[in-house]
This record gives sequence, structure tokens and C-alpha cells, in this order.
Amino acid sequence: MPANRQLLLDNRPKGEAVAGNFRLVSVETPELEDGQVLVRHHYLSLDPYMRGRMNDSKSYAQPQPLGQVMQGATVGEVVESRNPRFAVGDKVVGFGGWQEYSVADASQPGVLRKVDTAHVPLSYYLGAVGMPGVTAWYGLVKIIAPGKDSTLTISAATGAVGSAFGALARARGCRVVGIAGGPDKCRYAVEELGFDACIDHRQHPDARSLSQALKEACPAGIDGHFENVGGYLLDAILLRANAFARVALCGMIAGYDGQPLPMANPALILINRMKIEGFIVSDHMEVWPEALQELGTLVATGKLRPRESIAQGIESAPEAFLGLLKGRNFGKQLVRLI
Amino acid sequence: MPANRQLLLDNRPKGEAVAGNFRLVSVETPELEDGQVLVRHHYLSLDPYMRGRMNDSKSYAQPQPLGQVMQGATVGEVVESRNPRFAVGDKVVGFGGWQEYSVADASQPGVLRKVDTAHVPLSYYLGAVGMPGVTAWYGLVKIIAPGKDSTLTISAATGAVGSAFGALARARGCRVVGIAGGPDKCRYAVEELGFDACIDHRQHPDARSLSQALKEACPAGIDGHFENVGGYLLDAILLRANAFARVALCGMIAGYDGQPLPMANPALILINRMKIEGFIVSDHMEVWPEALQELGTLVATGKLRPRESIAQGIESAPEAFLGLLKGRNFGKQLVRLI
Repeated sequence: MPANRQLLLDNRPKGEAVAGNFRLVSVETPELEDGQVLVRHHYLSLDPYMRGRMNDSKSYAQPQPLGQVMQGATVGEVVESRNPRFAVGDKVVGFGGWQEYSVADASQPGVLRKVDTAHVPLSYYLGAVGMPGVTAWYGLVKIIAPGKDSTLTISAATGAVGSAFGALARARGCRVVGIAGGPDKCRYAVEELGFDACIDHRQHPDARSLSQALKEACPAGIDGHFENVGGYLLDAILLRANAFARVALCGMIAGYDGQPLPMANPALILINRMKIEGFIVSDHMEVWPEALQELGTLVATGKLRPRESIAQGIESAPEAFLGLLKGRNFGKQLVRLI
Repeated sequence: MPANRQLLLDNRPKGEAVAGNFRLVSVETPELEDGQVLVRHHYLSLDPYMRGRMNDSKSYAQPQPLGQVMQGATVGEVVESRNPRFAVGDKVVGFGGWQEYSVADASQPGVLRKVDTAHVPLSYYLGAVGMPGVTAWYGLVKIIAPGKDSTLTISAATGAVGSAFGALARARGCRVVGIAGGPDKCRYAVEELGFDACIDHRQHPDARSLSQALKEACPAGIDGHFENVGGYLLDAILLRANAFARVALCGMIAGYDGQPLPMANPALILINRMKIEGFIVSDHMEVWPEALQELGTLVATGKLRPRESIAQGIESAPEAFLGLLKGRNFGKQLVRLI
């Protein structure tokens, strides 16, 4: 059996997460039992939600247990199988965690899914045609539910969720304005992802300044917003929201290290008769087939070509993850393990 | 024609509203034109939303114009009519404003509505079977949409909206916990309005203390909340909200004088996958008939017997209104004009 390098959560962050929270170990992969499959991971997904699970506090998911392999989505190839539904060579999506190999109980439904790599690159099943894409789809379709000609905004616009959101919104005839960190990301959002405009929040370090930029980019006001960041970005959106605007609240990455992140003026929710709804896409498994179908078609027809930031080797995962939390990635953050 | 005493908005509040913002004048009632009706007001409704309209700032309604009669709902009796649909003696609900008489263009739909006073006291059409009742109904039925056995909470529980909310929630089999100011109101909420429990927020001057009291009163957590007050009350609710809890945001009376009212931890909206929705009942005229039907039945069958605070005479309206903003009223605040 091959050796398997793993990253464990060694201790919980005190404030900001650091590389020392993780520990790299090497173990033997076990013998398979009936029904099991050994998967060699090609890519490991790094996602902002993982930061929340590193804390031992109330959240929508159980905390990541200490001393165990960091959990996370993976794509890879079946290299051994004692399950008749999976053959060696099958490409699969699973939740294998931060390690080079995983043993999957493939007879349990939903644990492992075979995917087609003829029209969609394998890594995209962790991004545009995976959980981040479905997250964008759910917030747009089920919460914001825009009419044609609506003006929509999204923070972290060039990330895995943001790039999918942009393509999905354009397909519905909406004006879509991104918020991202830095001129390179903003240029990329407009020139490659097809956003109608993109605001560099680093040029607007408070809600007042950002809301002025939003006024210029959204002359008809904001009808719907997808929030990944929180803090003063959300305050600025509320200042430009139209009556009956909807906010899909998906992440508040600005607060993951424990800073207090108050909302300055919630009275605007009332004045504008807004709806703000928090969600996590794993609560809504029923929408995945419909969402993945649309996302796969957007990729296959070239309408969604998201960028990826790829770190090489399991040992690079902690630094890549910490960079993601600081917005250093450009598009979907992955770790390549082959 | 009778003399008509009126209260005008003389100047806008700087911070807290004061009696000097209003001016009492006396005018002659004009001759009626064809289609018009002269109504003698029996009761004038005082409502928290009026405070917002005294400011000259963006809100869901146009500001109250300076130098004009304060706007507001009224019930009264037709004393002259040049409209074939209304006869002298008809009891009517309208939007006559802070004055003793009003001339209504009764041919326009919705301006004046005849009401039955055989089963429902006339004044109730300004409260339980009027705008406040429909407000409670909309927030409960259309936003919170509780299941049986849900635990619901409401601030300003003994007011016109709160008392209707309690009766409507009990009719749906919910546990309903009020928040009110002072032991008398809390006793009244439980003993007369049928709340399962009531918390005196004066005993809990911060979110931490109030949330502890909520934990005791709501051992299964909070599934739905109706907010009239805002500020630390809402912060405390968020700390006890269950997954998928819904908040109907109807008023933030704590912020009407311009104090900043931040929300301490909006990340809880995400963690609990909550929905927070602001609304104003006049956006939803389509629900009024259904809501009034249910509210009228609750009153007629004795299941909703709200208390009223009644000030006497038009000249008492400013002080009664300022008292309402400070929670000095007990139940629906009215001014009797006969």
C-alpha cells in the first residue's frame, strides 16, 4: 500500500489562523474492506468555510476535530476497488480531506460520485461545477431571484463563488457589479469574467467611500447582493439598496478570526423592506442536480471559464489556505497532489 | 359649519421629538363639494411609524409636510354627505389626520370604509382590527410562517401589534413569549393577553442579560421573532435563535430619535441560516381582507381583547404621542375627540 501524507488540525487558532495550527504526518493506507474504494487525490479544495470549522464554537457545522485529518472536498482517481460500482481509473468527487489518498465507503450514497471529464476539467468539480458553483446558484436563484435588468452585486467577485455568480447572473440578463481586492482582480472580473463593472475595495477603506463607488457603478441602485465578506462592505451595500432588495448571506470572511463585525445601520433593512437570508448550500441538496446541470453547460459552452490558483503538494496546503483567507488567491484555490 | 381644531407639524425634531414640534390651530370646515363627506372623528390613532415621518430623511414613506395637518388614521361618524354611498350616521374608518373633522373625497376607492360596530367596538378598527392587527398578521403568517409548537417572541408585546400577534400565534398552537417594559405590562401580557411568558426588558439592560432571560423563557430556542424595537433586544434574540429562524422586522422604535443602532453580530444570521425581512403593511394591501376577517373573528369570540390607552381631546395628542414613543402607553394609544 502507498504511504499517505495527511494534514491534521493540531491545535485551534487563537485569533488569526497560522501554519502551526496544522501538522503533517505520514501513514500507511489501510487494506480495503468489501464495498470500499481507494482514491488517489488529484486536487484538494480549499474553501473559506474551513476557517469557521477550525474554531470550537457554535456554527452551522460541527467543529473540525483536533488530531484528525482536515476535512474537505477532493477529486481524484480510483486506484483500488472492492466495490462493483467503481473501477480502477474512474474519476471521482468526494470528501476525502487534506491527504493524498482516502478510503471511501463507496456503498453509502453521496460519498463518492463518478464524473465526466470529457467536457469539464476534473478540478472544476471542486469549483465552478461543484460546491462553490452551486452556492452561487442557490443564492442567486433561490434567495435573490432577480428579474431581468436587475442590478446585482457580489463581494469576493473573482473567487470560485463569485465567478460562477457572474456567469449565472449574466445568463439571466442582469447587470452584475463585482467587488474585489486590487486592480488586477478588478480588471480580470470585467475583461475575463464578464462583470459589467468591478470596484476595488482597497481603494475604498470605509462604508462611506465604498457606497459612493457603488452609486457610480450602480446608477439604478442595487436589487440583489451576494455577500461573502461582511463588515463595512455589507454596510455600504445597504446604503445603496433599492426597496425590496434581497441579500444572500453566504460568508463573512472578514470576521473569521473573531473580530467583532457589527452591522452599522440595520434600520435600513426596515426602511428598504429588504430581505437578508443566511444559507449554507449543504442544507439544500435537492437543488444540486439542477444547479450542476446549468453550471456544467456554462463551462462546456465557454461562458464560464474561471481561473484557478494551484499550490503544489500536500505540504503547501496550510500556506495556500492562509493566503486564501487574506484574498491572495486568484480564482478557485486548489492544491494539486499529483 | 363647525370649527375644526387641528394639529400641524410646525418644525422637525432635532433628536428627540418634543411637544413644540406641533402647533394647534382652529379653522372652519369648508363647504362640501359633490362626492365629499364630512366626518366627525371619534378617535385618532397614534402609531410609532409617525415618528419616522416627522424626519426629513429617506424612509419608506414621504416625510410629513411641514405646516400641514399631521397625518394618521381615524374612526368617526359621517355628519354631512354629498356622496350617495355614505349617509349621515355611518361609522367610518379613514385617514383623516390629527384633527376633529375631515372632509373625505369618498368617491375615491379606499379613502373611507364603512364598518360594522355591532360586534367590534369602533376604536378597534384603529388597532386589533386595523393596521396594527394586519401588521401582526402579515409578519406572523407571511414572514415567520410558524409550524405548530414553534416558539415565537415579540418585542413591545403589549402594544397594539403585540397583543394581536399573541392571539394570532396562540390560535396557531405556538408558544409565544413577549418582551415588554415593566412588571405591570408583563403581568398583563401573561394574565390577560395569554402570552406563555413575558420578559421585562427593564430588568435586562443589555443583550447578554436579556439573552439569558430568553434562554429560560424559551428552552427550545426561538423559531420566529417579530421586532418592533431593535437595538440590543434584537441582538439578544439572535443569540437564542434556532437554525432557520425568521425575523419579521417591523419597527426599530429605539432608533427613531437618530441614535446609531448597530447590530452587534450579524454573523449569527449566517451561522443560524436565518431570514430577516423588513416590511411595511401598506405594501401588502392584498392580505388585508383575509387578515381583518381573522382578527375580527378573534375579537368577536373574545379571544382578543386588547387594552387601549385613551387620551382625551385633540390638545392631548402631542403628549400622548411622545409617551407612546417612550412606552408609557398600555395597549393601543388613541385620542378620543368626542
